Amino acid sequence: MGKIAQARVLAGFQDFLPEKMRFRNAVISAVKVVYERFGFLPQDTPCLEYADILLDKYGENQKLVYDFHDKGERHVAMRYDLTVPLGRVVQMYGGAFNFPYRRYQIGMVWRADKPGKGRYREFMQMDADIVGDNSMLADLEMILLNIEIMKTLGIRYRVRVNTRQVLDSLIEKCGLSQEKGVELVRSIDKFDKIGRQGVIRELEAQGFSLAVTEIVGEYLDIEGDRDNVVSGLEKLLSSVSSFKSALAYLRDFSKLIADLQIERTQCIFDPTIARGLDYYTGLIFETTFLDDPAFGSICSGGRYDRLITTASGEEMSSIGLSIGLDRLFAAMESFDLLPALRPAIDVFIINFGDMYLADYARIALRLRSIGLSVEIFSKPVKIAKQMKIANIKKAPYVLMYGGDEAAEKVIVVKSMMSGKQEKVLLERLEDSFLSK
Amino acid sequence: MGKIAQARVLAGFQDFLPEKMRFRNAVISAVKVVYERFGFLPQDTPCLEYADILLDKYGENQKLVYDFHDKGERHVAMRYDLTVPLGRVVQMYGGAFNFPYRRYQIGMVWRADKPGKGRYREFMQMDADIVGDNSMLADLEMILLNIEIMKTLGIRYRVRVNTRQVLDSLIEKCGLSQEKGVELVRSIDKFDKIGRQGVIRELEAQGFSLAVTEIVGEYLDIEGDRDNVVSGLEKLLSSVSSFKSALAYLRDFSKLIADLQIERTQCIFDPTIARGLDYYTGLIFETTFLDDPAFGSICSGGRYDRLITTASGEEMSSIGLSIGLDRLFAAMESFDLLPALRPAIDVFIINFGDMYLADYARIALRLRSIGLSVEIFSKPVKIAKQMKIANIKKAPYVLMYGGDEAAEKVIVVKSMMSGKQEKVLLERLEDSFLSK
Repeated sequence: MGKIAQARVLAGFQDFLPEKMRFRNAVISAVKVVYERFGFLPQDTPCLEYADILLDKYGENQKLVYDFHDKGERHVAMRYDLTVPLGRVVQMYGGAFNFPYRRYQIGMVWRADKPGKGRYREFMQMDADIVGDNSMLADLEMILLNIEIMKTLGIRYRVRVNTRQVLDSLIEKCGLSQEKGVELVRSIDKFDKIGRQGVIRELEAQGFSLAVTEIVGEYLDIEGDRDNVVSGLEKLLSSVSSFKSALAYLRDFSKLIADLQIERTQCIFDPTIARGLDYYTGLIFETTFLDDPAFGSICSGGRYDRLITTASGEEMSSIGLSIGLDRLFAAMESFDLLPALRPAIDVFIINFGDMYLADYARIALRLRSIGLSVEIFSKPVKIAKQMKIANIKKAPYVLMYGGDEAAEKVIVVKSMMSGKQEKVLLERLEDSFLSK
Repeated sequence: MGKIAQARVLAGFQDFLPEKMRFRNAVISAVKVVYERFGFLPQDTPCLEYADILLDKYGENQKLVYDFHDKGERHVAMRYDLTVPLGRVVQMYGGAFNFPYRRYQIGMVWRADKPGKGRYREFMQMDADIVGDNSMLADLEMILLNIEIMKTLGIRYRVRVNTRQVLDSLIEKCGLSQEKGVELVRSIDKFDKIGRQGVIRELEAQGFSLAVTEIVGEYLDIEGDRDNVVSGLEKLLSSVSSFKSALAYLRDFSKLIADLQIERTQCIFDPTIARGLDYYTGLIFETTFLDDPAFGSICSGGRYDRLITTASGEEMSSIGLSIGLDRLFAAMESFDLLPALRPAIDVFIINFGDMYLADYARIALRLRSIGLSVEIFSKPVKIAKQMKIANIKKAPYVLMYGGDEAAEKVIVVKSMMSGKQEKVLLERLEDSFLSK
């Protein structure tokens, strides 16, 4: 192809060069391992779908869907999230599933959003969902999964839990229609960013009555450990008919969480959590950094009992969580939490000339067969230059094998950490690495 | 969203349900491990590029590129292969690289090709390339990498090697222009499918002279072990001026391969291998099943010294190989070579009722912490039904913990293989699994 006239990347899209990519892969692997230990199985779906599958599913965000007409004039769209494809999969193949269906999916999604710091048009989501399970066990497992992932990644976290029923009770207490209630909740959801006063002012500006803003004020003041929150909610909302079952759930769930010795710092009831009221039907949760909640949610989810249906139209109770890798990664980077990686190259073989190529290849193959990453330098340039490159590549070991070594049937192994060199019998090379 | 009116998948696109996806992941992981042992580092690039980066790069196949105008009226295109993005990356960031740059990339590519058996519009490629390295070492490493992948996957393979220079010498011997030469080579490339007679007939139909078809006939008859092929080529082509250096390369390379004790069954010189004459500039290779070459190539590549340039326009000698996961997977499936997988669920916990939920969760967490995949069944339905599901999920162990066990502080561990049940002290549960 020769030189590309204008080599550039679309705004909101990213190249991942090896240094970053290796860390990303390590984070993805760590999350995958936890998903699998919780019994979630991997699934994948196409990056392109018939557009009608995706459109009308995302409300006003529909304008962010990458849709186009392909060469066969089919109206197609790029994957916008991993939930709608999950719904399609359950509808198409669910007849052969053993529910509950626990699947995870890790993949790119595309949104024609305004790109900005930490906001991409192509980004990776890592979702785990349980479909066809309305049990409290599923709710509990989702919270435990969330906690386990945070622990595995070494993040000081707090899972903040609320329920749709608590928010519905608040709306009923305020005497609002569902429509006005959604507006109210949308302001409450901004509590982390704009604070108590901000929420009240916004409600006032929207024309909510003094009676309503007073109730909301009391609601926002409910805080403390899980028992405190439950009794605070009870005090404010016990007069509301729908609150009775909401309270029973909170008490049962609180008891389970306490039984499992999950501390207040790890999991708290937070009445201000209010993600997607048009979406979630039960438990709602999000996870923030304990030391910096303002960074925003790094893992969130909830129960959605009306999104997914079988082929016959039966609604499948479901619960899921989603992790945006890009935000999580940025957070881990900024808190210096990226995992330690093993060296990209364990052993760097200095090249003393073409006459040794077969020897170098043989040595490399032997060390690769015991799991080491080995690079033979491509050209017999000056040793100092090759050493410099081995250093840049952070290879912990450098091997030297030239005329003297060949005659003696030894190889020189240099540790780049200690600077120490040792002669190893060529036939004992693997042993010498296995005992390191 | 409720029920999707027409749940369906675009032709040429695939859903991967867990059973297949787990095998795919195992194959991908195995290949990744080998790439990394050979010192290749992971890289990723966006699935969408500015269209001008991709267009004009694929000759007549350009019509297969998925291109469209996005919401900002940018002309964009979906990734068609992983090589052009590699070229873009080198051009944009190469100034900071230490060449040779060894990277691998595993990702989907999209081609608006006619879908058919084994031909998809969305498929996964796994590429490894060395950029900025014109050494014979790089050529050798690529063949060794290819061999190592086949060994790792348990495939009985044959790597078939040729060079651009041999084909150029044949064209010169036939006294053809480069243009007619490309036509000739295109027919030779069909040898596997249409045989010697087929190639000759096709050349006759294209109007090639008797002199040419006679030379090609002799060329196609060259076979046997590597030395035989080299001497056969020498006999036929030694009068051609360009053949001298081609012969020197073949002899040197043959010696290296022999030095490494690579058998004729594993790697052979095959003058009929002729992939992309507009692309490859040196070594060309492809790998077929030893027992069924007609299945086609499952790993192929070669040296391309003119595709990739730096920002200043310098051409970077490169060599790479590419594996199409979908074809490889289909092949492994049909030869019954898919790797053994560990169980998706190691331990299935029977649910005796909500009063034990916290216990089940605690038990599951303890076993997960020692690396086991654990599912707690969601509902306390009849034990026989839960056992049946554990069986369908192929869980090797089922745990039972109800009233009696709670009183005794034990748990019943049932091996689904032997049918044997044993009571284990609850506090010794991890030990009992660690010693299995």
